[in-house]
Amino acid sequence: MAKEGRYKKGMDTLKEMISEDTLQAISGMKDISPDFWEMIVGFGYGEVYSREGMSLAEREIVTLTTLITQGAFGQLEFHLRAARKVGLTEAQIIEIIIQCAAYVGFPKATQAMQLAGKVFEETR
Amino acid sequence: MAKEGRYKKGMDTLKEMISEDTLQAISGMKDISPDFWEMIVGFGYGEVYSREGMSLAEREIVTLTTLITQGAFGQLEFHLRAARKVGLTEAQIIEIIIQCAAYVGFPKATQAMQLAGKVFEETR
Amino acid sequence: MAKEGRYKKGMDTLKEMISEDTLQAISGMKDISPDFWEMIVGFGYGEVYSREGMSLAEREIVTLTTLITQGAFGQLEFHLRAARKVGLTEAQIIEIIIQCAAYVGFPKATQAMQLAGKVFEETR
Amino acid sequence: MAKEGRYKKGMDTLKEMISEDTLQAISGMKDISPDFWEMIVGFGYGEVYSREGMSLAEREIVTLTTLITQGAFGQLEFHLRAARKVGLTEAQIIEIIIQCAAYVGFPKATQAMQLAGKVFEETR
Amino acid sequence: MAKEGRYKKGMDTLKEMISEDTLQAISGMKDISPDFWEMIVGFGYGEVYSREGMSLAEREIVTLTTLITQGAFGQLEFHLRAARKVGLTEAQIIEIIIQCAAYVGFPKATQAMQLAGKVFEETR
Amino acid sequence: MAKEGRYKKGMDTLKEMISEDTLQAISGMKDISPDFWEMIVGFGYGEVYSREGMSLAEREIVTLTTLITQGAFGQLEFHLRAARKVGLTEAQIIEIIIQCAAYVGFPKATQAMQLAGKVFEETR
Repeated sequence: MAKEGRYKKGMDTLKEMISEDTLQAISGMKDISPDFWEMIVGFGYGEVYSREGMSLAEREIVTLTTLITQGAFGQLEFHLRAARKVGLTEAQIIEIIIQCAAYVGFPKATQAMQLAGKVFEETR
Repeated sequence: MAKEGRYKKGMDTLKEMISEDTLQAISGMKDISPDFWEMIVGFGYGEVYSREGMSLAEREIVTLTTLITQGAFGQLEFHLRAARKVGLTEAQIIEIIIQCAAYVGFPKATQAMQLAGKVFEETR
Repeated sequence: MAKEGRYKKGMDTLKEMISEDTLQAISGMKDISPDFWEMIVGFGYGEVYSREGMSLAEREIVTLTTLITQGAFGQLEFHLRAARKVGLTEAQIIEIIIQCAAYVGFPKATQAMQLAGKVFEETR
Repeated sequence: MAKEGRYKKGMDTLKEMISEDTLQAISGMKDISPDFWEMIVGFGYGEVYSREGMSLAEREIVTLTTLITQGAFGQLEFHLRAARKVGLTEAQIIEIIIQCAAYVGFPKATQAMQLAGKVFEETR
Repeated sequence: MAKEGRYKKGMDTLKEMISEDTLQAISGMKDISPDFWEMIVGFGYGEVYSREGMSLAEREIVTLTTLITQGAFGQLEFHLRAARKVGLTEAQIIEIIIQCAAYVGFPKATQAMQLAGKVFEETR
Repeated sequence: MAKEGRYKKGMDTLKEMISEDTLQAISGMKDISPDFWEMIVGFGYGEVYSREGMSLAEREIVTLTTLITQGAFGQLEFHLRAARKVGLTEAQIIEIIIQCAAYVGFPKATQAMQLAGKVFEETR
């Protein structure tokens, strides 16, 4: 697929996952590095997220887990919202964090749970 | 639930996830620290894995992802086998690793894919 | 031990380690996930911290070290205060951070030392 | 080399890398732990950074990469400024972050790029 | 660029970096997941490594540093060889590892230095 | 202190911590990089481990914890032996690993416990 094709596919996938406002906010990246922005949209969302074989909800199980494990809390809030939008329930997100607790320890799980609580409140 | 109850529940869950031989092998932990073994089985499998709200297959999506992210390849083979046993297909496991690649980088994803290839071969 | 027993034991241990105010603050977790709160108190403080064989001060050497190593600075302030309360001196905490520097590198050690300086000031 | 020698050498190296104001700001560490401050300046800048065999600009490629990889964003802004001061261009820093994306995943690379954008703006 | 284009570009870049034998060995990945292999070659080497703005030698400074920092020793040997092939000297690689020591701690630096010693011996 | 002084102090500290055979084995590092070897002995053992304010046994609590947390199992066996030699009992080491389990998750704690079991057996 040519680069324009994957960029369009990436934007379509992103629009299923986040609100118009959030999309606006993150696309500020374009001004810092247009190439990097193209990679995020085109490779990340166009080539990876849009693959068949796993639903967006299942992909967000992977994403939330890896962000919690690496302590990437700066990106976690974005994906907690995306996870809700593509269909994970609050209860499922809590289960993911509890399952993580046994595998990454309580400190990261606790920080994730606090962030989840904040996002749940705002999206109810 | 009393400790005996959760230990039994943990053993029941473990038996759904791994073969009798593997169970035999890992229970050598009992000789090093009986308390730690009780925690793994009773807390890990009795209180966490056996919770409702997520299937064992969904829990293994979390587990595989966190192990790949932390580079815990020593434990990954065990859970690649468990993931197959509780119902994840080879194609689903490959999707999990590809989704991880974008989030943890190619080195860890590559090592995970090699290990997956080895386990697939042995369990076909 | 039944779950109620370990929860009570966990609360008793927590009260030795932190102030009433802090306990109040962190128990907000109960509203997000009562099950996760029970795990933190019951498993974390009731089954792990309250074990014999290591004093609370020695356990805090482990806790501070692991939080610094994983860069979990969101939780480090809480445990710097707890460490002081269960008997580690300012000098001992500084030694722990210096020992960490050689093992985790200067960036994480520096961030820990800054946080320690802030906590020392507030608890003098 | 005696300790005084390496401290002086470290201060000289630091002055090539950061502004007088920043030096003033970070030397507050002296009040928390004079020994740790001596180690940072004397060992870190006096024995490591001041070695021959790699330029300060090349050393900052290493430093930026390791900080991005370990998610040590608290220290990254300091070294983004240092990197610019010792001669890395904006374009080179962007290349480092893009190269990192493939090796540490997009979440950490994205956070680094946002911070770089902020530093570029302030140092233009 | 269409996918065939980036794959070819990736293979060309890879051939500059590693021997024919090593290329043969790693392309076994094709049998486990052709899609993942295409991503490694096409995205990793075709879109990232082959970018202008940084030489292959400078890119290997980034790669070695990130692999040491994340403890990805399974992939480090591969890139120590590649680093030598694209022009980094033994002395430069040693400097990278020493610079890393101050940032990631001695344990990972020590393991990297041992591996470097082994690779140096074999490539002399 | 001049560099010769700290090197001698480092060697004296190392001899308290490890056997003559092990010292012989690790000093092979000298042939790869004499400078790096001097840093390990002179800075690591001469300036850090030999500081007052914490006993060698307490320092090994820090070291074991950080190695388990970062998954640096390649270096853990060395320090499990050193920990035993400077006075930590088998029971204390088991307590450290159990305390770690709650903070870093079960996979790393399990791998550490297996290694501890092996070292205990060999040093009885």
